[in-house]
Amino acid sequence: MRVAHFLLVSLCLVLFSTCMAQSSSEYRHHLMPVPAHVEFHAGQMAIDGTFAVSTDAKPEPMMKAAVQRMVHRLEGRTGFTMATDLGTGTGARLVIHCKGPSPAVPKSLEDESYTLEITPTQAVLSANETVGILRGLETFLQLVDSNRSGYYVPALSIQDAPRFPWRGLLVDVGRHFEPVEEIERTLDGMAAVKMNVLHWHLTEDQGFRVESKKFPKLTGMGSDGLFYTQAQVKEVITYAAARGIRVVPEFDMPAHSSAWFVGYPQYASARGPYQIQRGWGIFDPTFNPTDERVYKFLNGFLEEMAKLFPDEYIHIGGDESNGKQWNENHAIQAFKKKHNLKDNAALQAYFNQRIEKILKKHGKKMVGWDEVLHPDLPKDVVVESWRGEKSLNAGAKQGFQGILAKPYYLDLIKPASEHYLGDPLPADSDLTPEQAKLILGGEACMWSEQITPETIDSRIWPRLAVVAERLWSPGNVRDVADMYRRLARVSVQLEELGLKHEGQTARMLRRVVQDREIGPMLVFASTLQPGTTGQRERLQKVNQLFPYVRMADAVVPDPPGGRELQAAIDTFLVDPGHNGAQLLGILNRWKTAVPDVRATVGAHPVLAEVAPRVQEFEWLGNVGLEAANYIQTHTVPPPGWLTQNLSLLDEAAKPKGAVRFVVLDPIRQLVQAAAGVPQAKLQEPAEED
Amino acid sequence: MRVAHFLLVSLCLVLFSTCMAQSSSEYRHHLMPVPAHVEFHAGQMAIDGTFAVSTDAKPEPMMKAAVQRMVHRLEGRTGFTMATDLGTGTGARLVIHCKGPSPAVPKSLEDESYTLEITPTQAVLSANETVGILRGLETFLQLVDSNRSGYYVPALSIQDAPRFPWRGLLVDVGRHFEPVEEIERTLDGMAAVKMNVLHWHLTEDQGFRVESKKFPKLTGMGSDGLFYTQAQVKEVITYAAARGIRVVPEFDMPAHSSAWFVGYPQYASARGPYQIQRGWGIFDPTFNPTDERVYKFLNGFLEEMAKLFPDEYIHIGGDESNGKQWNENHAIQAFKKKHNLKDNAALQAYFNQRIEKILKKHGKKMVGWDEVLHPDLPKDVVVESWRGEKSLNAGAKQGFQGILAKPYYLDLIKPASEHYLGDPLPADSDLTPEQAKLILGGEACMWSEQITPETIDSRIWPRLAVVAERLWSPGNVRDVADMYRRLARVSVQLEELGLKHEGQTARMLRRVVQDREIGPMLVFASTLQPGTTGQRERLQKVNQLFPYVRMADAVVPDPPGGRELQAAIDTFLVDPGHNGAQLLGILNRWKTAVPDVRATVGAHPVLAEVAPRVQEFEWLGNVGLEAANYIQTHTVPPPGWLTQNLSLLDEAAKPKGAVRFVVLDPIRQLVQAAAGVPQAKLQEPAEED
Repeated sequence: MRVAHFLLVSLCLVLFSTCMAQSSSEYRHHLMPVPAHVEFHAGQMAIDGTFAVSTDAKPEPMMKAAVQRMVHRLEGRTGFTMATDLGTGTGARLVIHCKGPSPAVPKSLEDESYTLEITPTQAVLSANETVGILRGLETFLQLVDSNRSGYYVPALSIQDAPRFPWRGLLVDVGRHFEPVEEIERTLDGMAAVKMNVLHWHLTEDQGFRVESKKFPKLTGMGSDGLFYTQAQVKEVITYAAARGIRVVPEFDMPAHSSAWFVGYPQYASARGPYQIQRGWGIFDPTFNPTDERVYKFLNGFLEEMAKLFPDEYIHIGGDESNGKQWNENHAIQAFKKKHNLKDNAALQAYFNQRIEKILKKHGKKMVGWDEVLHPDLPKDVVVESWRGEKSLNAGAKQGFQGILAKPYYLDLIKPASEHYLGDPLPADSDLTPEQAKLILGGEACMWSEQITPETIDSRIWPRLAVVAERLWSPGNVRDVADMYRRLARVSVQLEELGLKHEGQTARMLRRVVQDREIGPMLVFASTLQPGTTGQRERLQKVNQLFPYVRMADAVVPDPPGGRELQAAIDTFLVDPGHNGAQLLGILNRWKTAVPDVRATVGAHPVLAEVAPRVQEFEWLGNVGLEAANYIQTHTVPPPGWLTQNLSLLDEAAKPKGAVRFVVLDPIRQLVQAAAGVPQAKLQEPAEED
Repeated sequence: MRVAHFLLVSLCLVLFSTCMAQSSSEYRHHLMPVPAHVEFHAGQMAIDGTFAVSTDAKPEPMMKAAVQRMVHRLEGRTGFTMATDLGTGTGARLVIHCKGPSPAVPKSLEDESYTLEITPTQAVLSANETVGILRGLETFLQLVDSNRSGYYVPALSIQDAPRFPWRGLLVDVGRHFEPVEEIERTLDGMAAVKMNVLHWHLTEDQGFRVESKKFPKLTGMGSDGLFYTQAQVKEVITYAAARGIRVVPEFDMPAHSSAWFVGYPQYASARGPYQIQRGWGIFDPTFNPTDERVYKFLNGFLEEMAKLFPDEYIHIGGDESNGKQWNENHAIQAFKKKHNLKDNAALQAYFNQRIEKILKKHGKKMVGWDEVLHPDLPKDVVVESWRGEKSLNAGAKQGFQGILAKPYYLDLIKPASEHYLGDPLPADSDLTPEQAKLILGGEACMWSEQITPETIDSRIWPRLAVVAERLWSPGNVRDVADMYRRLARVSVQLEELGLKHEGQTARMLRRVVQDREIGPMLVFASTLQPGTTGQRERLQKVNQLFPYVRMADAVVPDPPGGRELQAAIDTFLVDPGHNGAQLLGILNRWKTAVPDVRATVGAHPVLAEVAPRVQEFEWLGNVGLEAANYIQTHTVPPPGWLTQNLSLLDEAAKPKGAVRFVVLDPIRQLVQAAAGVPQAKLQEPAEED
């Protein structure tokens, strides 16, 4: 009876997900982002050593370089030696039509559309601008597949264009610096998923990261020697432009600015000296908005930066000014009274208007976080919302352009599915069509309190790809299961660009256990993800100098282990008598790994904090095997078995060792199934921040 | 009876190797290179968050930076936040005494000696020069170990100094270019194993890799745009110097010089035009040694390079000049006759003498390959021998200094043990003590026909560490088993420097199979290594444009798989009835992997060439299991079983798919044991080049 019930429910689920997959397309493609329109045809175009690319357009340098990069990646997957130079004419296997070049530095509104037509004999990629060709080349690469007969791309028609023109990634290099190689790898990954804005968060309380020739003490005293020279900045901008990516620098002010004041304490609102902050949080040091010398200084600095960064926008931050130094400074209080500024928000608005005028003088438009939103600002200011859709819409209703950041905070270690479903312009938005046009897009944010050059790739990737899809693809592309299916392939393709996310867990575990044999530890790691930012702050007292080399750093956000277990349980419950192999395989692998994991954790004190998780790991495997056995043998568990195990599951959900299990929900489902609890949607245990 | 025999033989082997290990030291350390003198004492010094380094010497920048790097690596393994700044005084856990600084750029003869005394309360590192401190810091890091109670280093006394002053690595960036990051990573690895010379092979028929401002067409036409700017060269030299490593540039002449002539054909011995060579081998283009314009040009070029590279040596190559262009040029023939130069060797000697004078004028001494050896050259010329010990000794007997390269060609994909046992000055050398002093050391050579930036780390590492030990440690340190034991740990420690050798197989396999689940393929890969250079040339027709992304690139030289199987068989044969778990575990893992490996290889044409190896892999697992079963059940195999399987083993030793098995000898031993063949030393099947 119980088994029949499982069978029915699970069969429905299986049928349902099959239908979903079929409905999106007959061909199970791995495109991410999904194109605006795609239609698959019968047949395929073979790819072999004769593959070449030619164009009847003027083969300008940006296109030639993009084709070379693309062909090298194709060689890397297929092993064929190919012609990497862009040919002329229309005779090659892949032919490019392009109406004209993109500007040398990408603008904020460019035509990124393209079409791709593939028949069994030829592929034709067409665009109005080179940047559209770049986007189409990435699509082509994602289409490459193979079978016993060879490599191929499927015959199809694609008409594609982005839903939003601003699809960004913020990289915070203030809290932890990232070297140029890392930024360039990240740009390669962004281009692969058609993102077009690098928001470079260059200044923070914990570090000032860009060379100013006018004010050398900014990095000389505020960076620990970790900063980008102007030559490096130019290199990054060129690298990004070649991939159709804008670089928008952020100089956060008036707060988040301790590092500025280490060298220039005279521009703060309280007497110095100042030091680089080592802890995390909101700090008091703030520019003095009432001092004309501050505007003279910032004018000089922003003039220099306006020349260095060619993008039409400069981001001035504006977030989290706590007003403490202002409140404690009598001259500032007097200034507020004199100018009828009723509170600190009004004072900050005054500051922003002054800065906006400086930017305009140097040919730049302003971007700022929610807090800058003020009716007196000109309407070409762009507001970036870390507060969410409501705040974003409030701006649009006042006529401000906006970009959404809140659902895309990669540092919060949330599942890809959660980022995926956050939408800058959801179907139920109450904005008018005119207001909706003001929503330019969104930005994923890689805040760097708890990441280093060693771990950043695994915190950005592969999850950034689903934000890229949200911002490029039609709003109704929202099938989470299909997203994860495609993401697995895209993640591996991103690795070919030098990104290090896939190898990270093994690499870090090898180091801490000082051994290349880490198989059992990898099994353990497959059940875990990092603790939340808050958990790590409380449990590990992390700061800028903390070595981020713990288990919480080795494991990755939202790993496939949880989904794989869930899939195995789904299959098992359809027919426990016959479908047990996959589930029992996983659980027995856990069981087998336990003794080695316990010994390894015991012998390496850096891992000691996860010892309670090893206990729970052992118990989770055992209870899973028990549950499977009850189900397979149609045995009713003893009284109290369910209650006891559910309470142990709750215990395992509590913060420990700064790592969290990703397998609790599936095990809970299995336990409940064994105890005959109806398979309604499971309530997830509340998780602490 | 048969079993008793195995038991006896194998027990002796086990006892023997135990004695060997004990004789070197009571404590099983992981030092590589082994220090000149080391004595372990009772007790250990704990390492925790209070660890710090201080000095009573002048804390000059080189020492401070080295300490910071060292502490960061210690943090990376232990997870403690430590003081990274070098303190003053003698109160810290690790105290440095140093008599004086090393020169800003390392000289060819420096005092690299150091002593390290560790007691349970303090470690004291002493040296005459900073470079000795650097060497000692690496030793300290290799000593760090852990147990349940914490991290520690053992109490000990070390007095250490290198056996040879010239311990180099040649990196050929001519045939395949390597970016600056890769060179810097390599320098970090070299420093970790106490090597002190980067021999930078900068020019080849296939590419000219260093910017000349005087002669911009050298890279402008001869490099495909892949070269080091002078700023980058300076960066690399500074990076190397900070690690106590000299940078000796090589500009190969008169042959191996096609790339020079693409831009400057007038200096060749035959009329151009010339092109960058894409194939491998020895090419005809050669400087014209009879044309005074050639010396003017080379004088200008070498003057510029002499200023760019601060080392006192410049390497001028001089190898493999085939004389073809000289023979076909009537003016050159006439010149030879006129100057009484009896053959092309004499003509090349004339050229070398001219070049040597140019170098001397610019303050440099000359290094060249064997072919430069000529009595008329001054005795401060250093001869590097790719021909081997005989050639090296011939030079020493004529009074020339020499360095040995031949046994250390990393590109030949030989086992670490073979490189390890090659010695520039073996115990049976017939050189006099005076002549022996002329043997300066040796250089491992990473020729780059078949490597790329993606694979170079796995071709250099970890094998380079054993060459480093040969050149640093006393000549009687030659225990191969103990070397491999230590090498496993050192290999993982090298990865913390960013070197990518450990993760390479997984990374490349993920890409070609476009999937992160590659467990069975890794099992298959553990039994394989790349084919020899010659095999790849014949089977894959490789050249400079070939994408090195095949199975032969993914697998690594001399992987542990073969040794692990051998160890399991040794254990098994001691007591087949009880010791089977390890061996059967390995063989069953193979068996389980086969179906997935076959499907994966079938679906990805880039892997198709290894399909015959999959067949053999399956067969090797099966025959291993059969043999183990015969032995365990005391069953005599059927007639013909031995003959048939030995011939299949011979078949599996033949070149196929450009990959070679590393498990044939152990399986052969097992098969012979099953058939009752006495366990005399097995004859290895002859392997084709």
